Amino acid sequence: MSKVLVFGHQNPDTDAIGAAIAFANLQQALEVEAEAVALGTPSEETQFALDHFGLKAPRVIERVKPETDAVMLVDHNEFQQSVADIAEVNILAVVDHHRIANFETANPLFYRAEPVGCTSTIIYKMYQEYDVEIPEAIAGIMLSAIISDTLLFKSPTCTPEDVKAAKKLAAIAKTDLESYGLEMLKAGTNLGDKSAMELLDLDAKSFPMADKTVRIAQVNTVDLADVFNRQSELEAAMVAENAAKGYDLFLLIATDILDSNSELLAIGAPIDVVETAFATSLTNNRAFLPGVVSRKKQVVPQLTVAFEG
Amino acid sequence: MSKVLVFGHQNPDTDAIGAAIAFANLQQALEVEAEAVALGTPSEETQFALDHFGLKAPRVIERVKPETDAVMLVDHNEFQQSVADIAEVNILAVVDHHRIANFETANPLFYRAEPVGCTSTIIYKMYQEYDVEIPEAIAGIMLSAIISDTLLFKSPTCTPEDVKAAKKLAAIAKTDLESYGLEMLKAGTNLGDKSAMELLDLDAKSFPMADKTVRIAQVNTVDLADVFNRQSELEAAMVAENAAKGYDLFLLIATDILDSNSELLAIGAPIDVVETAFATSLTNNRAFLPGVVSRKKQVVPQLTVAFEG
Repeated sequence: MSKVLVFGHQNPDTDAIGAAIAFANLQQALEVEAEAVALGTPSEETQFALDHFGLKAPRVIERVKPETDAVMLVDHNEFQQSVADIAEVNILAVVDHHRIANFETANPLFYRAEPVGCTSTIIYKMYQEYDVEIPEAIAGIMLSAIISDTLLFKSPTCTPEDVKAAKKLAAIAKTDLESYGLEMLKAGTNLGDKSAMELLDLDAKSFPMADKTVRIAQVNTVDLADVFNRQSELEAAMVAENAAKGYDLFLLIATDILDSNSELLAIGAPIDVVETAFATSLTNNRAFLPGVVSRKKQVVPQLTVAFEG
Repeated sequence: MSKVLVFGHQNPDTDAIGAAIAFANLQQALEVEAEAVALGTPSEETQFALDHFGLKAPRVIERVKPETDAVMLVDHNEFQQSVADIAEVNILAVVDHHRIANFETANPLFYRAEPVGCTSTIIYKMYQEYDVEIPEAIAGIMLSAIISDTLLFKSPTCTPEDVKAAKKLAAIAKTDLESYGLEMLKAGTNLGDKSAMELLDLDAKSFPMADKTVRIAQVNTVDLADVFNRQSELEAAMVAENAAKGYDLFLLIATDILDSNSELLAIGAPIDVVETAFATSLTNNRAFLPGVVSRKKQVVPQLTVAFEG
């Protein structure tokens, strides 16, 4: 078998990077020549976690074909969130915890998805099933991914399996889950030194909905005012992105990780569908979304239904 | 949770029926209110296996919505091979061993695919992982599914995991694998009392390829002459099916289960793509395909590539 590249989605978050490192390590233990790579550089949160556990950031790739034709995907499956030449290469395996859409293969493959809070939770189970030991640093980055995806277990996407895996991984990584977790999440909320465009690109994904393309960015903060005192700058950047990339609608979800609420900023059309999706009215392009912290569970399905309606 | 219907693909083969029975039983053991159903009546091979192990055929459904909105799919994922209202219901889980295509969900789900020879092999592993005991009769129908899908381990789709699972299941079902297996396969080769249309419908699946719809039927036989002494009758039925159902191309793969070769009969267009796919020329609409026994591994990928070419 030729070399296999393992990677998560574009605009990688801590799970996209951590799951790639962890799954590549598991494949290596199973005698597969696998290398973890990434479709972007780590966020500050992810870099904090990598540094804490003494790991190097995976190198960034833009295309697969110059190197190999075999890939394994973690933490995503939709082609528009993947590498540019994904349709031209052979997908050997996917480990993911999202809906399946805009995904297709010519051949049978290994696909493992579970409706849990984090891909690294599934990979933790696979290490057990294959009876492979998890190295201390890799347990650390997997733990970081679970903390990140579940916002320290506060997200409605969090399941008992995520909590169980995180506790086991914290023990392997000799890490105090709560204190490390809050420290890591806060490392990701340093928005002040970023341009509006950088902020919108921190954790953003595109979704086809009906005949529209919807871009949904999410940023974590410990104070929503840190985001919205730059509202006009953000709106200008969203207008520019819609025009440049062909998005019909750009949503920014600013999530307060301390009190687990979000504030929505929406630019583009159709705005009435957004209002229907969240049963709210936008004022000054904004709406408060109480209790919303999960794009996957509290934003994308509601929008999908509203677009179909 | 409301009642969950568990089923395999249209024109069910022994794995589509057996995997549905086995997965529904596993879900019941996990406290899910699951019922195995089917999208068609059992073939003679499947009925032989059900009778042998004292199991009843699952009831046949045409739509899900009148009963429930939650389903689990086994042995398929492509919507055109599934129940008519699949796009309107909530897919909670899929266990499969085919390529993924024309499949989409709005929500995260449980998806377990592995590139092994039979869905029942994956379900066997899941029984182990969940530490659930397999009842004797259910082990028997799972064993039958593996024998059917792998043609008693002779298909190139067969993996060491299929052989291992079959041996374990044979022990649980107190069955002699070789003698029972050949007897069961032969029960499925009784083609004489079937109309041409029935024969084409025994094990047929539709595949979108480029902008065409390709119908691929497969029949097992112990003598290819049993099929081709009815060639003109079969061709007339294939022409009629193409016209009635909008297929562009209809392929019949007649597989000799004793010497592991197939003979192809092709009606429709484009025939040059078929000839490219199998590096052969059709004579009298036919071509001998030495060593070909697997639609999934030796027919569909080759055609897909040729259509894209």
